[in-house]
Amino acid sequence: MSEDDEAPRGRRRGSIGARRNPETEAAVLMAAQALLAEKGYAGFSIDEVARRAGAGKPTIYRWWPTKADLFVAVYEQDKAAFVADPHAGDLKSDLIAYTRALWTFWRDSPAGCTFRALVAEAQGSKAALAALRDKFLPERVRTLRNIFARAAVRGEIDAADVEALLELYVGFNWLRMLTDRIADDKAAVDRMARLIAGARGDRKAG
Amino acid sequence: MSEDDEAPRGRRRGSIGARRNPETEAAVLMAAQALLAEKGYAGFSIDEVARRAGAGKPTIYRWWPTKADLFVAVYEQDKAAFVADPHAGDLKSDLIAYTRALWTFWRDSPAGCTFRALVAEAQGSKAALAALRDKFLPERVRTLRNIFARAAVRGEIDAADVEALLELYVGFNWLRMLTDRIADDKAAVDRMARLIAGARGDRKAG
Repeated sequence: MSEDDEAPRGRRRGSIGARRNPETEAAVLMAAQALLAEKGYAGFSIDEVARRAGAGKPTIYRWWPTKADLFVAVYEQDKAAFVADPHAGDLKSDLIAYTRALWTFWRDSPAGCTFRALVAEAQGSKAALAALRDKFLPERVRTLRNIFARAAVRGEIDAADVEALLELYVGFNWLRMLTDRIADDKAAVDRMARLIAGARGDRKAG
Repeated sequence: MSEDDEAPRGRRRGSIGARRNPETEAAVLMAAQALLAEKGYAGFSIDEVARRAGAGKPTIYRWWPTKADLFVAVYEQDKAAFVADPHAGDLKSDLIAYTRALWTFWRDSPAGCTFRALVAEAQGSKAALAALRDKFLPERVRTLRNIFARAAVRGEIDAADVEALLELYVGFNWLRMLTDRIADDKAAVDRMARLIAGARGDRKAG
């Protein structure tokens, strides 16, 4: 246990119980975001976030059990500021708008540009893999799933294909991010969006 | 420079010039494969490969400038034993056969199951990223490109879409590998193959 863990509980914000204190939560997320901008994912630590936020480490660990979990919370908060649901009216246009905003976020935001480090950590840590696969991914594809679901309602794609198309879309983006090819490549994004929006498969024939 | 680098050149195999000596090349690849099986990518080092193969480090570095390059060479050699071009006669069947063989390779071969570690290393090392993106990927999609090119000749897909469909396919596989979901999931593989084989896009309409 570190010195911080042994400090009197009453002196720290947010250690009153399992329910989150919004003020402490905001202070922790703000400290995490600033630390990420300064040091990147490699230099990101819960110890340092606790110190900067004036919050107890036990509290932070109760809300975000791993470094990956806390990172994901900052990522989600920042992403919402960059990537909105475009509601463009058709799947291809929605995917183009969403992708270009996502790539801008990945390039420009501290949380976005260190996301590659989380994927890397998940290859060597079971806890980081679980955070990435079981918390991060389901959470982060929510807007995308709405985009695909609306396209199914409009009859552009088959409702039974929503999850599989979502997976193709996410895979394309991961491949681009992990090989550092997320410059604003309008032609490639348009092509991808056209193919995914037009992928009806030969369900009747096959 | 290590002690090994200062040893007399004549005592080592393969240090006679820029042209590769097939015997030394085979010895190095065999040593690299065995080391990978024993220690994984994290414990893989050119020092140890040189020692086991009785080859000079300068020679190895001339042929494979980084650990990532040598890993890629072992990967290619092993993959050829697991994943052949299926020549099934249609794109959907080719993709199903290829994917299931690829996932078996990724699960069962030492080089296959440590490929995730190379992708992770590429997120923190520019040399590993260059090896992955500029050498590994173009080399490794050769059979796949043939599969898609034959489908274009048969009129199943548009020839102009080969590269973009290849990218969707590779992205799907990376996403599955990096989130450790490469069990033999026949239903998911079939669905993906049906959608990619049926992705004609609305080229005429759009």
